[in-house]
Amino acid sequence: MSQNHENEEHDHFYHYEDGAFECTKPGCNVRKLRNPDGTLRPQNPNIEAIKDDFLYHLGLGAASHDLVNMFSDVQFVCMGGTSARMEIFAHYIMKEIGHSLPTGADLQDITRKSQRFAMYKVGPVLCVSHGMGVPSIGILLHEIIKLMYHAKVKNPIFFRIGTCGGIGLEPGTVIVANQAVDEMGNNYYEQKICGKVVKRPAIVDKRLVNELLALSKPEDSFKVVTGATMCANDFYEGQGRTDGAFCEHSEEEKMNYLRELQNKGVKNIEMEATIFAALTYKAGIKSALVNVALVNRLKGDQVTTPKEVMMEWQNHPQILVGRYIKKKLSENKS
Amino acid sequence: MSQNHENEEHDHFYHYEDGAFECTKPGCNVRKLRNPDGTLRPQNPNIEAIKDDFLYHLGLGAASHDLVNMFSDVQFVCMGGTSARMEIFAHYIMKEIGHSLPTGADLQDITRKSQRFAMYKVGPVLCVSHGMGVPSIGILLHEIIKLMYHAKVKNPIFFRIGTCGGIGLEPGTVIVANQAVDEMGNNYYEQKICGKVVKRPAIVDKRLVNELLALSKPEDSFKVVTGATMCANDFYEGQGRTDGAFCEHSEEEKMNYLRELQNKGVKNIEMEATIFAALTYKAGIKSALVNVALVNRLKGDQVTTPKEVMMEWQNHPQILVGRYIKKKLSENKS
Repeated sequence: MSQNHENEEHDHFYHYEDGAFECTKPGCNVRKLRNPDGTLRPQNPNIEAIKDDFLYHLGLGAASHDLVNMFSDVQFVCMGGTSARMEIFAHYIMKEIGHSLPTGADLQDITRKSQRFAMYKVGPVLCVSHGMGVPSIGILLHEIIKLMYHAKVKNPIFFRIGTCGGIGLEPGTVIVANQAVDEMGNNYYEQKICGKVVKRPAIVDKRLVNELLALSKPEDSFKVVTGATMCANDFYEGQGRTDGAFCEHSEEEKMNYLRELQNKGVKNIEMEATIFAALTYKAGIKSALVNVALVNRLKGDQVTTPKEVMMEWQNHPQILVGRYIKKKLSENKS
Repeated sequence: MSQNHENEEHDHFYHYEDGAFECTKPGCNVRKLRNPDGTLRPQNPNIEAIKDDFLYHLGLGAASHDLVNMFSDVQFVCMGGTSARMEIFAHYIMKEIGHSLPTGADLQDITRKSQRFAMYKVGPVLCVSHGMGVPSIGILLHEIIKLMYHAKVKNPIFFRIGTCGGIGLEPGTVIVANQAVDEMGNNYYEQKICGKVVKRPAIVDKRLVNELLALSKPEDSFKVVTGATMCANDFYEGQGRTDGAFCEHSEEEKMNYLRELQNKGVKNIEMEATIFAALTYKAGIKSALVNVALVNRLKGDQVTTPKEVMMEWQNHPQILVGRYIKKKLSENKS
């Protein structure tokens, strides 16, 4: 048994060397998550029995498409809010990893028919938009995790490269989450299933966090920090903003709330962290939340920085994750 | 004072004739919602003080754009999940109401720079996509309600024309919600604000429901029904589906849950109803939820109907809401 117990607090032991991924703690009833070859085990006992599992919001089906042929070489799945950002990232990563397409071919949105998300594939890197908020990325996670299973992808690593509001950080700073918490400070994703409340631990892979932090360079124009990322279900009142269509709390209540979060180690607020951490963890998929702060919430609510500056800031998580992907691909080659 | 008390259960009395809209129930502390000319009163005391209120996800600002000039003639705001569906609706309603553009002009996505939503304006009808789930439509509602206020729009009416799963209904059936409930059957929208749990009543305008039901014709290829619409925060487990990436409940638990919902009067499940009803109600905006069922959940989970049939079904809410808009515009003219 591997002694790679960096994530001992996870209730699960990771076994990176041989690709297997299994809970070995006594009394834990979680099934084996990965096969020894690194492919995912189904976490839904019904999946194998579904004749044509159709991933509705992706417009891809296990029978209508040869998913193994299309996707089995995927190693990294990068998600971000807008389709435009993911298209930019796809072209960026193509250049970074030196991936080329045949003459006359260009990247095309694989899921364009479904009209829900946008997905680009650059060799081993899948780039996909997730929209805004927990329910939207939740739909994507369910379908992408099933896609990984159907396509027999080995040891995929998921990234969310997103934007957020920072707390006490200079805008442009990148936050790699070492914890994902909800608006009440709980580090789980709570959902209702058939009338019951189910809480799923939102656990972040600390080893991957450290690997990402190590890729920050002194000469970079932006800082990379780590801390807790808070997931809100609203952009306005849910993040304490006082500039929404409604506001029944005071500036003082907002500042008290933000300072309380800061004291608890929260570095930034976005809208997808808990479910992203919870569902990837539950599926046995390594993942990281890499967000760039567009505003320092201790100084204001409105995002009014010029478009060009914000576009530049949005590249920061892409640069960091790009370095990680490049490094891993070159390690795999050697 | 008007005696139009059709919505007496709302705690608020509507005064349609003079455009004013105010709670008159003793003890109710809700502020006046509309001015006598029908324009909205700000429900956030800070709004007037913000120098340039920038609607970030729309890419529109109160100082950077002449919002009154651009939008004051809006009478109807129609929202739907995908930008493609809203573009189709924009062209459909343009034909229906006989609106024409100058030679050489075509509809263009007003919010294309923000890359979050898509928005088309067809004279008095604003057509805008809201993505998937409560947080996504919540962002849009905050910004569209502020847009209505800044643009001095008079008595706007909001529609959600969406898709959903039906319970015991033939696919293709349109459900006009007479109630919006969450996954636990509560008819409020619950959110966390600065560490506190806030519950906002998700109230539907019964008068508008009846007006819409009356527009169904015997010769229509689809039925129009009314009942409660359930808002889930997930497409898979949150709606009892057994075909997600995870499933820890049984087929029996699913069926019991769906039948329980059916017994409570729930006709359909989608992902935006509670917040849509709650925020429009709170803003003093008449609104309706008009969804078409793409699947009968008592018969299965997967949405596998051919694309062409589904595209046809998705027109049904558009047809009904189109009739309402056409009728109101012709009444206003005469």
